Amino acid sequence: MERTTIPQTMKASVLLEKGKIELQEREVPTPVGNEVLVKIAACGVCGSDVHYYETGRIGDFIVEEPMILGHEAAGTIVAVGEDVDPARVGQRVSIEPQKCCRVCEYCKAGEYNLCPDIEFYATPPIDGAFCEYQIIEDDFAYELPEGVSFEAGALIEPLSVGIAAVQKAHIGVGSTVHVAGAGPIGLITAQVAKAFGAAKVIVSDISAPRLKIATELGADEVIEVGKDEPLGEKVNAFIDCTGAPKAMYDGILGVAPGGYAILVGMGPDDIELPVGYITSREVSVTGIFRYNNTWPIGIQLLEDGVVNLDVLVSHRFGLDEVEDSLDLKSRQDSMKHVVCP
Amino acid sequence: MERTTIPQTMKASVLLEKGKIELQEREVPTPVGNEVLVKIAACGVCGSDVHYYETGRIGDFIVEEPMILGHEAAGTIVAVGEDVDPARVGQRVSIEPQKCCRVCEYCKAGEYNLCPDIEFYATPPIDGAFCEYQIIEDDFAYELPEGVSFEAGALIEPLSVGIAAVQKAHIGVGSTVHVAGAGPIGLITAQVAKAFGAAKVIVSDISAPRLKIATELGADEVIEVGKDEPLGEKVNAFIDCTGAPKAMYDGILGVAPGGYAILVGMGPDDIELPVGYITSREVSVTGIFRYNNTWPIGIQLLEDGVVNLDVLVSHRFGLDEVEDSLDLKSRQDSMKHVVCP
Amino acid sequence: MERTTIPQTMKASVLLEKGKIELQEREVPTPVGNEVLVKIAACGVCGSDVHYYETGRIGDFIVEEPMILGHEAAGTIVAVGEDVDPARVGQRVSIEPQKCCRVCEYCKAGEYNLCPDIEFYATPPIDGAFCEYQIIEDDFAYELPEGVSFEAGALIEPLSVGIAAVQKAHIGVGSTVHVAGAGPIGLITAQVAKAFGAAKVIVSDISAPRLKIATELGADEVIEVGKDEPLGEKVNAFIDCTGAPKAMYDGILGVAPGGYAILVGMGPDDIELPVGYITSREVSVTGIFRYNNTWPIGIQLLEDGVVNLDVLVSHRFGLDEVEDSLDLKSRQDSMKHVVCP
Amino acid sequence: MERTTIPQTMKASVLLEKGKIELQEREVPTPVGNEVLVKIAACGVCGSDVHYYETGRIGDFIVEEPMILGHEAAGTIVAVGEDVDPARVGQRVSIEPQKCCRVCEYCKAGEYNLCPDIEFYATPPIDGAFCEYQIIEDDFAYELPEGVSFEAGALIEPLSVGIAAVQKAHIGVGSTVHVAGAGPIGLITAQVAKAFGAAKVIVSDISAPRLKIATELGADEVIEVGKDEPLGEKVNAFIDCTGAPKAMYDGILGVAPGGYAILVGMGPDDIELPVGYITSREVSVTGIFRYNNTWPIGIQLLEDGVVNLDVLVSHRFGLDEVEDSLDLKSRQDSMKHVVCP
Repeated sequence: MERTTIPQTMKASVLLEKGKIELQEREVPTPVGNEVLVKIAACGVCGSDVHYYETGRIGDFIVEEPMILGHEAAGTIVAVGEDVDPARVGQRVSIEPQKCCRVCEYCKAGEYNLCPDIEFYATPPIDGAFCEYQIIEDDFAYELPEGVSFEAGALIEPLSVGIAAVQKAHIGVGSTVHVAGAGPIGLITAQVAKAFGAAKVIVSDISAPRLKIATELGADEVIEVGKDEPLGEKVNAFIDCTGAPKAMYDGILGVAPGGYAILVGMGPDDIELPVGYITSREVSVTGIFRYNNTWPIGIQLLEDGVVNLDVLVSHRFGLDEVEDSLDLKSRQDSMKHVVCP
Repeated sequence: MERTTIPQTMKASVLLEKGKIELQEREVPTPVGNEVLVKIAACGVCGSDVHYYETGRIGDFIVEEPMILGHEAAGTIVAVGEDVDPARVGQRVSIEPQKCCRVCEYCKAGEYNLCPDIEFYATPPIDGAFCEYQIIEDDFAYELPEGVSFEAGALIEPLSVGIAAVQKAHIGVGSTVHVAGAGPIGLITAQVAKAFGAAKVIVSDISAPRLKIATELGADEVIEVGKDEPLGEKVNAFIDCTGAPKAMYDGILGVAPGGYAILVGMGPDDIELPVGYITSREVSVTGIFRYNNTWPIGIQLLEDGVVNLDVLVSHRFGLDEVEDSLDLKSRQDSMKHVVCP
Repeated sequence: MERTTIPQTMKASVLLEKGKIELQEREVPTPVGNEVLVKIAACGVCGSDVHYYETGRIGDFIVEEPMILGHEAAGTIVAVGEDVDPARVGQRVSIEPQKCCRVCEYCKAGEYNLCPDIEFYATPPIDGAFCEYQIIEDDFAYELPEGVSFEAGALIEPLSVGIAAVQKAHIGVGSTVHVAGAGPIGLITAQVAKAFGAAKVIVSDISAPRLKIATELGADEVIEVGKDEPLGEKVNAFIDCTGAPKAMYDGILGVAPGGYAILVGMGPDDIELPVGYITSREVSVTGIFRYNNTWPIGIQLLEDGVVNLDVLVSHRFGLDEVEDSLDLKSRQDSMKHVVCP
Repeated sequence: MERTTIPQTMKASVLLEKGKIELQEREVPTPVGNEVLVKIAACGVCGSDVHYYETGRIGDFIVEEPMILGHEAAGTIVAVGEDVDPARVGQRVSIEPQKCCRVCEYCKAGEYNLCPDIEFYATPPIDGAFCEYQIIEDDFAYELPEGVSFEAGALIEPLSVGIAAVQKAHIGVGSTVHVAGAGPIGLITAQVAKAFGAAKVIVSDISAPRLKIATELGADEVIEVGKDEPLGEKVNAFIDCTGAPKAMYDGILGVAPGGYAILVGMGPDDIELPVGYITSREVSVTGIFRYNNTWPIGIQLLEDGVVNLDVLVSHRFGLDEVEDSLDLKSRQDSMKHVVCP
């Protein structure tokens, strides 16, 4: 293992149990084999972090012992395992925060996100990146181009969610798209849809200020839910980024025959859907479970300047302010919170 | 128009309103342009015929004036329009009972079943084939190979449903498949799945005698719902042929990550689905709205002897017994009813 | 048939035999059924027009009787057949210059360009559009958006070639592409590749001025063949727009494993290809035979302003100057010639 | 590492240089990490083994130091590395004889056969399996079902070639297929095409006895080249298993518009192809470089009894008879030779 001077211990923001976060002194991990050690420069706050903090669980995943949150991370490689090119030390990188088995049928078929043994940052019991240093495998640390900031680098993770959604929705040149929800994921997805050639992207939300940002980022049309007329035309693809059952139900009804409805927002486990419509129009309904092979595309989109992630960062926090950063709702102008260790 | 001796009028079984069928004398239609006139030899009874008979509607389609039911038909061409090769007169054919506009984006992209102007036999206000003669366009009347019976020819229609479902479910060599429902559609779909190379086809139903037929037709495993253990393994594809919300819900939970759930059975318009499971496993849920380009494949499967349709015919009826034929439930050993004018 | 005042006869530039063109007075055709009559405003000159003029044939297609050349046309609908909405009279349209049977397996599967009975403007014995009026079917006359010129409307035909090539080459966000040839098709294809999200488009040609235009139109890199270093990296897709065997051979060797080589330029019938490379790298080699379902996409790209066709028009000609217009080589600065009746 | 009693040394048939094979005493390799050690029970002789023996090279791959040939192998696991379940010891397995990097873009996208760092048995400088023991990674050793012989297990390798070719050729229910060449690969490919649902498989060869086997194995039609009429109809897919330029050229001319030509047989590096036909009919021409993810399918086909590999074995040889086994041509009735250490 090659390494520059790295301290023995680091600060880490640890979720002890639901509602309880503590700044601890933890040992800095040591990269072995094909791992690299990244000094975290920026780590975005995701709705799932908030969810673990507030409820201690997401579906079957339960926080049973102390865990570090945060999975949208970028930083600088400061040490590498023995199988990694030492020249990578010093490289600015974005982290794809998952580790797959590489040998199961899913991994070998290219769908490694569906690997049954996948380990993911900040999904119990795996630690995330609200800390000073974190480990990732060599090929899941992607070099950042020069003009791309650490914050944008961190947000390649939600960008990847948008890319995966847009790919699953078969969006291409000429597609019409409805994105429900103008939070970070919705705004990213709308931009990605345009970057993939969508002819028309319509964004709906209940918040006028958020819709204003959508328009600035290139949405062709916005719908203020509860105030504007609902969607007047059928679209090729609907992507839900709200998690709200009613948004999903209504959105699916707006999909043209043969189109796609991709449910990205996290909602209740069971939801009533318009199955009669789905089947008689051959609408394909599915979701995404993270992503695979999206980082190179994300970096490309950033390099080409066709998506803007920096503009989404509304607030920055220190490692000692993580609890604060998880409070997305009380700040009126909140968009994306980023923790900068 | 070329034609052999054809009577001026014919007998037709007409649905006057829900629950009321009458045998009427109707004018024999005259084929023009690219149409052919088929003397109907066999016409299967479908659940949708029963539905229109019992309730007078399916979804938005409402029986507002007298209509002839029946859309699973085969017979002999007895006359042709001026644009059709007169040599077709005398040909035994299976009817694909739909007429599309051929100019919309769906038709020109090959998905003519999604054509917004589609006309379909026995879908209001289009007449079906429980009558002696019916019209269809030239290229939707497919010549039957010698060894294929008129009854099997009629059942290429439900066979096409099975083919469309299996295609949508991406079933191929090595796939594992769960078909819920061992009625005619389920039994056909199970056979088609095997013909497409499925490694394992599991059929579930509440009826032991129906499951016995499933086994005879090649199902690798059967599950008697409520008696046997439920599905013990995840499958690549689930095809619901029951229309029962619980079967759909449970079936979806049995799909492996990245798999498909195709809802073929007609159920309520709104159904609670396990959306958390669907999205976190990237299960694609959709249905089929009829089919396109399936007849050549269906004929091929019949010629190769890899699907058996004749065995599904349990009862035969005359044109004057259509009301009787629509009573699928009171006969204990009912499978497929066929009207033979 | 609805029509405004239309003369009985029109001027038409007729290819009598190879090398011999005559301006004739011809009867104006009458639209029937689903046809519309278009007053031609602009008709581009294509390499195939030149080929028929110079050699009297392309492959199996031989000019055996007088024929009107020109298949890249736009104009105004001035009359319609009895099955067409009369409101279309007056509409500015781009013509997709083909007529398919709509009933064969190819048409019904959406690949109508492969229809064995296809009729195409200016392919013997079908007349083209170097004349004042021409007929096309209703759904193959696409309304032009307001800001799009007739000339750009005419060039949606070569744009469609580019779209078809880019689609066949599986070009999307992140792809690297090599386009050989910076003539009109090459310059269009390069623009389309960018519009479909290509990360890097490299254009090669022997002409520095043409490469300059390529750069202005968005090529990321240009290679002056015979002067610059050849392609230094493998690309995901190679599109040949030269027809030159050596360009094809070399271009294929530059495709990365699993990539695509699309041969668009017309060359000799038999060509030596690097089959060892093709097979051991699983490069897919194919061509395009015109296009299907591309006009809506082309219009979208024009509306979005992501492709520029007007800039390609270098010279304009009257109907009496068609012979002149077919001489593409002697004018040093020739790019696209357009005949404006 | 778990292991049963394993000798220190083994017999290995080593290709010293072209035309020179020697039976040597070699050290038995020791499995580490995720490797297993397989006691080889059967190893098929492939044309590429013959090629290396006769010419010392295939394309860029040159035998520069002594190498063990043989890459179609099956046997019994006798020892495992420290990361492998010791319960695998004693398992009968078929070997997928390649090792990929698992981290490059190809590996992570599921196309690991295109991995630039792939290592393959008996491709210089990697040793193959004409020896008593050989190493392979855990997940590339597939358990053989009970009824499948070691010889059939070894021939899952060429079966995988056939599967990859059939997949690339998009063969499914209803396809018509022309397989040129009735050697082992051709006969396997023809069987696989039928197993994937092909409606009609036509096999051509110059040898009547080989065509007889083709018919016995299910070919719908055979063509004795030079004696029978050539192919009379266009097919959806052509698969060349001869490597002969003329067979490729003629075969491509027999592909229907939109069809596929897959070149599997190894021929000269540069070959004249009918490019005019390829492009004007949109025929896709490509080859296969080995295979990925085919073993589970191959095992499935064997279990279902839809392909017969055992019947292809014509001669068996000991490890001391490898030189003899590589002489495929002098034995008139040669089909597949297998070395049984």
